[in-house]
Amino acid sequence: MADSILVVTAHVGDFVWRCGGAMALHARRGVDVHVVCLSYGENGESNAAWQGDARRDTVKALRRAEAEEAGRILGVASMDFHDLGDYPLPESADSVRRVSQLLRQTQAAAVLTHPEHDPSNLDHCRTHEMVLRARMQAMAPGHGADFVVPPQVYSFEPHQTELCGFKPNVLLDITDVWDIKWQAMQAMPTQRNLWAYYERVALQRGAQAGRRGKTAGTRYGEAYQSIFPSVVTAFAG
Amino acid sequence: MADSILVVTAHVGDFVWRCGGAMALHARRGVDVHVVCLSYGENGESNAAWQGDARRDTVKALRRAEAEEAGRILGVASMDFHDLGDYPLPESADSVRRVSQLLRQTQAAAVLTHPEHDPSNLDHCRTHEMVLRARMQAMAPGHGADFVVPPQVYSFEPHQTELCGFKPNVLLDITDVWDIKWQAMQAMPTQRNLWAYYERVALQRGAQAGRRGKTAGTRYGEAYQSIFPSVVTAFAG
Amino acid sequence: MADSILVVTAHVGDFVWRCGGAMALHARRGVDVHVVCLSYGENGESNAAWQGDARRDTVKALRRAEAEEAGRILGVASMDFHDLGDYPLPESADSVRRVSQLLRQTQAAAVLTHPEHDPSNLDHCRTHEMVLRARMQAMAPGHGADFVVPPQVYSFEPHQTELCGFKPNVLLDITDVWDIKWQAMQAMPTQRNLWAYYERVALQRGAQAGRRGKTAGTRYGEAYQSIFPSVVTAFAG
Amino acid sequence: MADSILVVTAHVGDFVWRCGGAMALHARRGVDVHVVCLSYGENGESNAAWQGDARRDTVKALRRAEAEEAGRILGVASMDFHDLGDYPLPESADSVRRVSQLLRQTQAAAVLTHPEHDPSNLDHCRTHEMVLRARMQAMAPGHGADFVVPPQVYSFEPHQTELCGFKPNVLLDITDVWDIKWQAMQAMPTQRNLWAYYERVALQRGAQAGRRGKTAGTRYGEAYQSIFPSVVTAFAG
Amino acid sequence: MADSILVVTAHVGDFVWRCGGAMALHARRGVDVHVVCLSYGENGESNAAWQGDARRDTVKALRRAEAEEAGRILGVASMDFHDLGDYPLPESADSVRRVSQLLRQTQAAAVLTHPEHDPSNLDHCRTHEMVLRARMQAMAPGHGADFVVPPQVYSFEPHQTELCGFKPNVLLDITDVWDIKWQAMQAMPTQRNLWAYYERVALQRGAQAGRRGKTAGTRYGEAYQSIFPSVVTAFAG
Amino acid sequence: MADSILVVTAHVGDFVWRCGGAMALHARRGVDVHVVCLSYGENGESNAAWQGDARRDTVKALRRAEAEEAGRILGVASMDFHDLGDYPLPESADSVRRVSQLLRQTQAAAVLTHPEHDPSNLDHCRTHEMVLRARMQAMAPGHGADFVVPPQVYSFEPHQTELCGFKPNVLLDITDVWDIKWQAMQAMPTQRNLWAYYERVALQRGAQAGRRGKTAGTRYGEAYQSIFPSVVTAFAG
Repeated sequence: MADSILVVTAHVGDFVWRCGGAMALHARRGVDVHVVCLSYGENGESNAAWQGDARRDTVKALRRAEAEEAGRILGVASMDFHDLGDYPLPESADSVRRVSQLLRQTQAAAVLTHPEHDPSNLDHCRTHEMVLRARMQAMAPGHGADFVVPPQVYSFEPHQTELCGFKPNVLLDITDVWDIKWQAMQAMPTQRNLWAYYERVALQRGAQAGRRGKTAGTRYGEAYQSIFPSVVTAFAG
Repeated sequence: MADSILVVTAHVGDFVWRCGGAMALHARRGVDVHVVCLSYGENGESNAAWQGDARRDTVKALRRAEAEEAGRILGVASMDFHDLGDYPLPESADSVRRVSQLLRQTQAAAVLTHPEHDPSNLDHCRTHEMVLRARMQAMAPGHGADFVVPPQVYSFEPHQTELCGFKPNVLLDITDVWDIKWQAMQAMPTQRNLWAYYERVALQRGAQAGRRGKTAGTRYGEAYQSIFPSVVTAFAG
Repeated sequence: MADSILVVTAHVGDFVWRCGGAMALHARRGVDVHVVCLSYGENGESNAAWQGDARRDTVKALRRAEAEEAGRILGVASMDFHDLGDYPLPESADSVRRVSQLLRQTQAAAVLTHPEHDPSNLDHCRTHEMVLRARMQAMAPGHGADFVVPPQVYSFEPHQTELCGFKPNVLLDITDVWDIKWQAMQAMPTQRNLWAYYERVALQRGAQAGRRGKTAGTRYGEAYQSIFPSVVTAFAG
Repeated sequence: MADSILVVTAHVGDFVWRCGGAMALHARRGVDVHVVCLSYGENGESNAAWQGDARRDTVKALRRAEAEEAGRILGVASMDFHDLGDYPLPESADSVRRVSQLLRQTQAAAVLTHPEHDPSNLDHCRTHEMVLRARMQAMAPGHGADFVVPPQVYSFEPHQTELCGFKPNVLLDITDVWDIKWQAMQAMPTQRNLWAYYERVALQRGAQAGRRGKTAGTRYGEAYQSIFPSVVTAFAG
Repeated sequence: MADSILVVTAHVGDFVWRCGGAMALHARRGVDVHVVCLSYGENGESNAAWQGDARRDTVKALRRAEAEEAGRILGVASMDFHDLGDYPLPESADSVRRVSQLLRQTQAAAVLTHPEHDPSNLDHCRTHEMVLRARMQAMAPGHGADFVVPPQVYSFEPHQTELCGFKPNVLLDITDVWDIKWQAMQAMPTQRNLWAYYERVALQRGAQAGRRGKTAGTRYGEAYQSIFPSVVTAFAG
Repeated sequence: MADSILVVTAHVGDFVWRCGGAMALHARRGVDVHVVCLSYGENGESNAAWQGDARRDTVKALRRAEAEEAGRILGVASMDFHDLGDYPLPESADSVRRVSQLLRQTQAAAVLTHPEHDPSNLDHCRTHEMVLRARMQAMAPGHGADFVVPPQVYSFEPHQTELCGFKPNVLLDITDVWDIKWQAMQAMPTQRNLWAYYERVALQRGAQAGRRGKTAGTRYGEAYQSIFPSVVTAFAG
């Protein structure tokens, strides 16, 4: 198992809904889980917070607090907020550099991030592209002798999978940590409209995993698509 | 790791070039490796044997002997020859049934077979389809109470990967058993024209795996594409 | 709106889970809804019925009774059972002909059936292909002067959408008939293991439709992929 | 039907050839049709205008006049020229913002624009991407309380459809307004080389629509690909 | 240039509309052009012939006569009618064998046939598959010592290209033989409804070729998709 | 045959491994071969050069010298180094303009460059996109009266073809110039780790070409994917 993994999201909420189970599962086993949120999602994913005369700073602070609490519940080792703004998220060579440096420091074996395509949310695509670029920068000797073996990249589940061409090839059994993920989801009341939706996503992925896994006990799952081939020394049983 | 795996090929030679490493690797660790060859490949993949006034029976016997010797070297638990004929291989509901029964008997956790598409060799496509059909038959209670959890299916590498839409997501490190695979390849002198080709395939896949795996020692590899999502409880490190 | 639609499924249960909402919605508005089940799904989709010393005939009769009751609840105009057997479902030129004749009799404007691809269930693919073939036969003057304008074909949602390459381009709001669909689902106790799963599917599709539709009131939905371009005289508002 | 639609093109000519029928059809029925041209197409799509010692300003003025006349014929409600330059068209966060503001003002139910891919004309791809980004910006509460329900996006037909991966799922019958579209095409004499080409495109799409539509009277058509699923309450007849 | 090419179609009319230019062009240069029509297209593509009390035999004879006349005009070396029936066209191992024998006799360097996919016309898909199967049979030493170097396969243009996933990578300039193709089209009065449609197809492909070819003189074209990589010794200029 | 071709790469080494055979083959026949390297590949593709306290300038000078020597061996007409930096390579409107001007000066009939997709190396994707943009700029009359007929674009082979969606449709027989390519490869000792890998690539492509080409003598090959349809006046034999 990896010693360290990295999660990179466009907006603060994304890590909870999409890979909170993976985070809790690995953190509980001693894996360092690092998180980068490129924006607070203040413009497009904080609808409930824009009541009355809400100010941008207030919304951002609120979302950051929620993210920190959710991260704490999931057991993260570190969180980094780039505050690039959202809807749309701009390109940032500086953010690419920061992510590449984090990869060098943490030697993360895997990065979890958004899928390559999403016509309904280009912030997600841009994040995916920035992660791939940071991965290159982290493995280049010309940027420092601490260059890394390039990590695997897993796309996590987008809101409408078929629209994004998302093809999961890994189902992660998160039954054992579902209560932690659920608790982290509830630490994000600004997006409470998503609670039931992502509970159902977890149940559907659990049902799909349970059908075919060795343990019929799987009740909750998360879906991932690996971008690069995995190197193995035997087929799973 | 699986207790048992099943290999299903269109022609006798296929298992050596395409998944001989996986077979040796698993057999050596005590996994039962079963092989089904739907035909002897006597028409289209035994060119060197059709010299002078060769007869079909002689060619088939020759290829069967080669396959049995290669299987012995790789450590197979059983081999089954359906003798359906090739170029083209016909559909056979009876073969589907035999494969499904073997799945029930062996409880194989994985099946290795040809990819879904191959315009240059429709025997390969048909084999893939028959495997998927046998998988259904094996999991249906109406065909007997010994129905199975449906196995994962891995497509192994075709001759021209891009032509077949083959997208490997698993690279298997076969460095430790390369000498065995090489020996099995040489047990198939009828297709000696493929020896160097598939040695180079193994070296290319080894180089791709070695670049990114934890062990830079990987020298030989085989590529696979899993058809169904894998269920896991942690990301590989 | 269409005067008549046709539903063609591989197994008896499929029409309830996958397009029961569409059936109820159209039937309620006076559209004739015709159903063809190519098999009873007795082998692979009647697991709970194979208890003790169940006989095939008993299982088939049970599933047929369930289907008839579910059809009655949904308001179907006719049901036709071809009893081809399943897991695997065989090809049948005779069934193609029967479906083509039904198309000629009903002049159905749309056919609802399984998607083109499904590696986990080739019965579904074969049904799709038979529908397309019946559609050709129904529009050919050489098979009778009562040939039809070829109907639109909609694929309904498979069990694992991404595995099947299913790309829905139509979300049907079934909120108003959800109670009827739910009642029809419960008329299929043999597959009660699917009740909660497909209730969640309906809620997810409803959430996706409600997000973007004019009526935020959408709570339940069904997803479809049209195979042929639709001819329109204006863009929807 | 929509109350308002928005057309966004890379170059001034595009709206006439690709969606002039849709514009005339909707305008005639009282729908407000708004047009944004990101450039005048002065560099790459005004070949006939670069005679002798033509100056850029002259070419741009000429193309703008043509576009305004074509727009007038088609019945547009407004036209906005961003004058970004072309071949290549640069990215522009400011243009994204302007388009998003127009979406908020007009509450357009649909946006017509170029497809996602076009290796022969990256200006088209960039326009598509800018539209998707503007759509996000328009639906984000953080950019103003007048945020909108995200509109459907339709890609219109590119010059070489197969090269662009264009897969039309909607054929619009423009027979009734063909004379208006033809008149608007002729208001663009700088690109008279395209007149016959796009008349044939309209006839081919008309023939495809007429074959399968209820009215065999369809003679002219336009093809579109919807990017997002459509929400419906019944299947078309 | 090839010494011999083979055209294999599902119905008699197909060769005229889809590759009549290629046939005339090569025949005129001394290349032997052989044609196989798997059916007369009597059921689904002879609508105008089913007037009054037309009998199947009469329709078939009529279509055969038209095909022979069109073939004569295009300069074919041979025509073979398999009379398999259509809408739907059945699979036929015997037809595969006959096509493979023709490949052996003619040593055709290229085969022109339908594309792999066509949901509106499965006869076309089946023909494509039978051609690929015949190609295998023709190259297999086990079926005779006169086995051949496998020919290139070109898919010609289907009725609705995007629906079929047709991606042309070759545009053939048929300007010089357009009058011959047009004459051959008119030798098929049963399908006169297609004359104008395929004249426009030729003009569109001509315009696309003329835009980028060295000779701006190209006025008529045909589009093809090669299935296998072409082996060349230099890039075209 | 073309009078002039252009090669555009992200890093200095790319042209040797991926299209050195094409370069030597055409140069030997009098075709002018021009090369643009957007960066020296100093950061990510010069690993062996970053020993001890190597400085960036030294590494860049070393790689440039290697590239010039390799270019000399292959017989290039000109080389242009843009020195944009790598891992990641930044977008550059200025580089696009320079490439477009070179296209105008050389009237190159074909451009060889990286494929559209490569998740492991976004510098390659960006180069592909810049080439397509330069192609547009070169054909636009508004950028000068010396505008060109747009050249064909060929993608050359990436490191892991399947990961990049690379689908070669052209295999170039480079047997006659293999010794020259091999010599050029050895002029790049900084990347000596790639020598054996790309020798095997050439042998595999040679084997694939030899199987199907008229000359069984093909031993070495290179694979290409044409982006635009080719215009031809006959099918190859």
